[in-house]
Amino acid sequence: MRKDGRRPDQIRPVKITPHYLKYAEGSVLMELGETKVICSVSVEDKVPPFLKDTGMGWITAEYAMLPRSTHQRTPRESATGKKGRSYEIQRLIGRSLRAVVDLALLGERTFWIDCDVMQADGGTRTASITGAWVALALAFRKLLKEGLLAQNPMKYQLAAISCGQVGGEVLLDLNYDEDSLAEIDANFVMTAEGHIVEIQTTAEKEPFPWETFEKMKNLALKGIKELTQIQQKVLENA
Amino acid sequence: MRKDGRRPDQIRPVKITPHYLKYAEGSVLMELGETKVICSVSVEDKVPPFLKDTGMGWITAEYAMLPRSTHQRTPRESATGKKGRSYEIQRLIGRSLRAVVDLALLGERTFWIDCDVMQADGGTRTASITGAWVALALAFRKLLKEGLLAQNPMKYQLAAISCGQVGGEVLLDLNYDEDSLAEIDANFVMTAEGHIVEIQTTAEKEPFPWETFEKMKNLALKGIKELTQIQQKVLENA
Amino acid sequence: MRKDGRRPDQIRPVKITPHYLKYAEGSVLMELGETKVICSVSVEDKVPPFLKDTGMGWITAEYAMLPRSTHQRTPRESATGKKGRSYEIQRLIGRSLRAVVDLALLGERTFWIDCDVMQADGGTRTASITGAWVALALAFRKLLKEGLLAQNPMKYQLAAISCGQVGGEVLLDLNYDEDSLAEIDANFVMTAEGHIVEIQTTAEKEPFPWETFEKMKNLALKGIKELTQIQQKVLENA
Amino acid sequence: MRKDGRRPDQIRPVKITPHYLKYAEGSVLMELGETKVICSVSVEDKVPPFLKDTGMGWITAEYAMLPRSTHQRTPRESATGKKGRSYEIQRLIGRSLRAVVDLALLGERTFWIDCDVMQADGGTRTASITGAWVALALAFRKLLKEGLLAQNPMKYQLAAISCGQVGGEVLLDLNYDEDSLAEIDANFVMTAEGHIVEIQTTAEKEPFPWETFEKMKNLALKGIKELTQIQQKVLENA
Amino acid sequence: MRKDGRRPDQIRPVKITPHYLKYAEGSVLMELGETKVICSVSVEDKVPPFLKDTGMGWITAEYAMLPRSTHQRTPRESATGKKGRSYEIQRLIGRSLRAVVDLALLGERTFWIDCDVMQADGGTRTASITGAWVALALAFRKLLKEGLLAQNPMKYQLAAISCGQVGGEVLLDLNYDEDSLAEIDANFVMTAEGHIVEIQTTAEKEPFPWETFEKMKNLALKGIKELTQIQQKVLENA
Amino acid sequence: MRKDGRRPDQIRPVKITPHYLKYAEGSVLMELGETKVICSVSVEDKVPPFLKDTGMGWITAEYAMLPRSTHQRTPRESATGKKGRSYEIQRLIGRSLRAVVDLALLGERTFWIDCDVMQADGGTRTASITGAWVALALAFRKLLKEGLLAQNPMKYQLAAISCGQVGGEVLLDLNYDEDSLAEIDANFVMTAEGHIVEIQTTAEKEPFPWETFEKMKNLALKGIKELTQIQQKVLENA
Repeated sequence: MRKDGRRPDQIRPVKITPHYLKYAEGSVLMELGETKVICSVSVEDKVPPFLKDTGMGWITAEYAMLPRSTHQRTPRESATGKKGRSYEIQRLIGRSLRAVVDLALLGERTFWIDCDVMQADGGTRTASITGAWVALALAFRKLLKEGLLAQNPMKYQLAAISCGQVGGEVLLDLNYDEDSLAEIDANFVMTAEGHIVEIQTTAEKEPFPWETFEKMKNLALKGIKELTQIQQKVLENA
Repeated sequence: MRKDGRRPDQIRPVKITPHYLKYAEGSVLMELGETKVICSVSVEDKVPPFLKDTGMGWITAEYAMLPRSTHQRTPRESATGKKGRSYEIQRLIGRSLRAVVDLALLGERTFWIDCDVMQADGGTRTASITGAWVALALAFRKLLKEGLLAQNPMKYQLAAISCGQVGGEVLLDLNYDEDSLAEIDANFVMTAEGHIVEIQTTAEKEPFPWETFEKMKNLALKGIKELTQIQQKVLENA
Repeated sequence: MRKDGRRPDQIRPVKITPHYLKYAEGSVLMELGETKVICSVSVEDKVPPFLKDTGMGWITAEYAMLPRSTHQRTPRESATGKKGRSYEIQRLIGRSLRAVVDLALLGERTFWIDCDVMQADGGTRTASITGAWVALALAFRKLLKEGLLAQNPMKYQLAAISCGQVGGEVLLDLNYDEDSLAEIDANFVMTAEGHIVEIQTTAEKEPFPWETFEKMKNLALKGIKELTQIQQKVLENA
Repeated sequence: MRKDGRRPDQIRPVKITPHYLKYAEGSVLMELGETKVICSVSVEDKVPPFLKDTGMGWITAEYAMLPRSTHQRTPRESATGKKGRSYEIQRLIGRSLRAVVDLALLGERTFWIDCDVMQADGGTRTASITGAWVALALAFRKLLKEGLLAQNPMKYQLAAISCGQVGGEVLLDLNYDEDSLAEIDANFVMTAEGHIVEIQTTAEKEPFPWETFEKMKNLALKGIKELTQIQQKVLENA
Repeated sequence: MRKDGRRPDQIRPVKITPHYLKYAEGSVLMELGETKVICSVSVEDKVPPFLKDTGMGWITAEYAMLPRSTHQRTPRESATGKKGRSYEIQRLIGRSLRAVVDLALLGERTFWIDCDVMQADGGTRTASITGAWVALALAFRKLLKEGLLAQNPMKYQLAAISCGQVGGEVLLDLNYDEDSLAEIDANFVMTAEGHIVEIQTTAEKEPFPWETFEKMKNLALKGIKELTQIQQKVLENA
Repeated sequence: MRKDGRRPDQIRPVKITPHYLKYAEGSVLMELGETKVICSVSVEDKVPPFLKDTGMGWITAEYAMLPRSTHQRTPRESATGKKGRSYEIQRLIGRSLRAVVDLALLGERTFWIDCDVMQADGGTRTASITGAWVALALAFRKLLKEGLLAQNPMKYQLAAISCGQVGGEVLLDLNYDEDSLAEIDANFVMTAEGHIVEIQTTAEKEPFPWETFEKMKNLALKGIKELTQIQQKVLENA
């Protein structure tokens, strides 16, 4: 039993509020326990230089935290410069979403994914990906309806979940308190079918054996299955 | 009758959700029509150099917009550098709140006011001030309860509202569509008693006579009265 | 009687030296007591993106202080980044001048107003506006003479003056010593006819009643009248 | 057979030149085929704020590319700002080395790992880690000899290697040409015993099944074994 | 005969206005023909880290141009970042003045030299040095009078002048038009005795023989002699 | 006899390794004693705005030091911003090389010279120039061979050497230990014929007489002669 009453293989309550922002082509408020992320999708009729005149589109992501999303106030990146951690996370979000979309069907457009963490209680990067996928699906739905897209560019359903080892025990979906004690930190980004899009795993204290990796993989597959079912329901009702 | 059905002297529906963020010492979600601002207060046990060893505290504010708070996506200030407009607004918020607080009662602490605009439909600076005052009152209440403050440093109740002239008619609390057509733009920051904390008024098209200023002043006094009553109720129920 | 011998409603000696810089299309040295500002106007055959192909021109301003314009040396903004205060002031200067010019008569040109404070003894923003208006008038005169403008784009004569309350007394045109003690700080930007272009007023210590505002307004109207007469004479003799 | 004549499970020729720089506490030139990285270790008698007075030390890394390490010249990060990719890589290098060192044995010192890519032909991040581990071992040896360290803080031997899938075939240690065609990109950081320190794997084109991951894992284990043997020999002869 | 009527070995009219700024410890307006530089000296009771607790003082310089000191407006360095040319010039000014001062007599103080070019017509760096020396001498005089310095730290009198070759002819003190055509550009910083403090000479078009250098040297010696006589007179009358 | 066994007029051992980098159009590793600089030349099919449509080309240089090229680690300029010293040096390198090349023969191309100091033991700027000239000659040779240049744009052979005075004695080619004690620091950039391209000389302690300059000049002429002979041999064998 974990401090917040969960079993080791249990994810936190998930709530995805679609159409959270008025102006964005797609948006959700993604809640994973106390972690809350605003995910929005903005469409720009322009691609980066390396894609000009190729007919292909692009997906890019930006990630940031509101100053008081954290226990102590975090200074704004407009003052400090963008931090390495934010770059690392937003690159992960962008790569993950590009892997499940047919960029050739986007037209010469850039889809900007903005993930702004309103409240951070662990798992902000996985919540961002899980929420951003829904926001992107909503944006595609809108552009399809408006005739701006001829065909749905979404190839696969995508979600992400963290695993870790705390006090020798392997846990699914760590909250902040668990995360700050974890010996291992892993993030799995997978499709609804359990195929791999991105894996990042880190030994925070000591190198660890492959058996531990296997245990985390199995928890992650279970978590991804549950998340993709929730996403599905949200899209059906949106 | 205005496009959204309001009378010229009518403010938009106001909703102030207290304790909106989990970690902040004080916070609200401030909604003024479709304009939504997250206002949070963070306490730091440290003052700027010019106040060191004076026993006095400080209040400072930061203002920013989420990238998709606007009709078109606005690039992040972590990429572009903080904009002049944001500096201007956050300086206004900070000055306004300092004017209604007894800084000598804060102890050697800095109170950081963060106003992050989630959705911008006109009046973001006035909504920020009105909401920040409630968040600050909540933070003082918390510190008083915890014995960290001996006496309530809040001297006056504060709110802010915009006025403007559109198509020759003077209006209270302009939304984005009205604001973008306005010939005059004015922001009034006043106490519940109608005393002046800050006035900023600008001729957007042509210089204008003092009679017009008088009309705006009267509308503003009405708006401030209504806003401070709403604030009062929120604090009573929080 | 004030420390420097002035009556409460008296502005400091004003000296405006036209054609102060050799290369600028228009320029003055603006002296308001010991406050000295170099105001120059530069014409660029290009407008910001939002005005492209509209046939309209633009006016924009930049404000900065020489490092030793102040009692203590101020580090350069090329080292520290542009400060919020400078942004706030230069935005005020730009807005004020745009309000008295017919931008449609400028052609697709940007008029850059540079206000560089050589010596700061209070009132630098009002001196900047009063001086910049003369420099802009001189630039228009030059371009009219050269046939680059067909018609004078200047619609109104503009000046600015500060008021404040010190030790309970309302004063016109505060110098640095007065300003640093002031309970209220106000800046009035008006036309020669006394119409409003911009008002900014701030309670530095305590919120204040509207009667005080009325007193400042009346002083300001007197000051603006005197300043616009001086501007007029300078232009006649330049 | 690969274009450069290697078998799918074959790493490129490795050359590690110890003591490559004169002033650094430890340094190597790491060559992995045509990829060349200068790895240096610098010791500073100071730790980051969060470790002050804990008695513990810290290891941090910086990664950069010389402008003409690449096919086309890459603008310097002193002009463009540090790129997201560089942040991501240097954070990986730092985390990996910290995982194999007993920070409590470092004293209150920071060990700076600098990895500067002189020539980039794929695998720069794995070459950086493999080389940096040797440079760090050399630095520890030097400080032990000088009596500045009482005990060797190195707990495990560490190396890194990339895997990928190109044209449906799983390959070990991709060079630039292979990397730019790869469908999957994976980096394995492991100890000599094959324990996991960090895994990062990315679907560049399509999500992929776990069987492919297993194949990459097995190649990586083979590569790590060979690299750690080479490191061992270099240290014996240095 | 040169375009402006000067002989090849003739410097432009020099005017040095002492006590040009009200607050600075020392200041002049330095005019060399149409080139005008405001030179000020500010004293700070603090030295850079490398001089802490040595009892020695420091002299450092900053150089900048007002935006409309030039034929076309030059964007501000607060927007563009400090330019290489400005760094090069301010480093030259600082080195030159340190070479003629006994830093051990300054106390633990930094003397900031600010050279702000109001109007640029060639020779701004030499005018800056010549003017800054007078401003520094005035600052020393003030601190001696106030008892803050026990002994005059100034060891030598210093001036600077440019030479160049235009159309095959060697000229002294080039103005902007000459400078933009020059085949050779040289700056000589020397003491009143003709000893060398700094020489910088550059072939702008073609490498040149040592005979040409000799000619420039002789012109420079003449120019320095005249400048130091003017400085002397200014100091006597200030 | 100097500490490292050299006579006062003796340069350190020189080693120039051509084709040091695989991708650059021209490159060398330049070794001057323990000073080691990687010099590379990159060709870009584009010129700066001021040369557009003139048919002329451009040469520009960038100089930087690896963080552990120095006795103590130097923070990266990507973190601190480019330093004044680096700007000064890279401007010198660029100017020097432009003076010996016929820019009209380059076509509308920019030749980027990158000088990255791997190890710094004094004389990095002169080693950079001497090495960069060879790298540029190699790049021209390559482009001539490929038919991209019709005619060799190199007009003169160029080298650079430092002189200085240490303990009253004039020395050629100072190493770091000598340089840090030097009373005078001079850098001579000359052609093989001994014509002047750039001279920079600085009094580090006291102004000095012209006789000392003459002594340095003569040493420099000797050094340049030897360096240009070595360059010649390298080019013959490359």
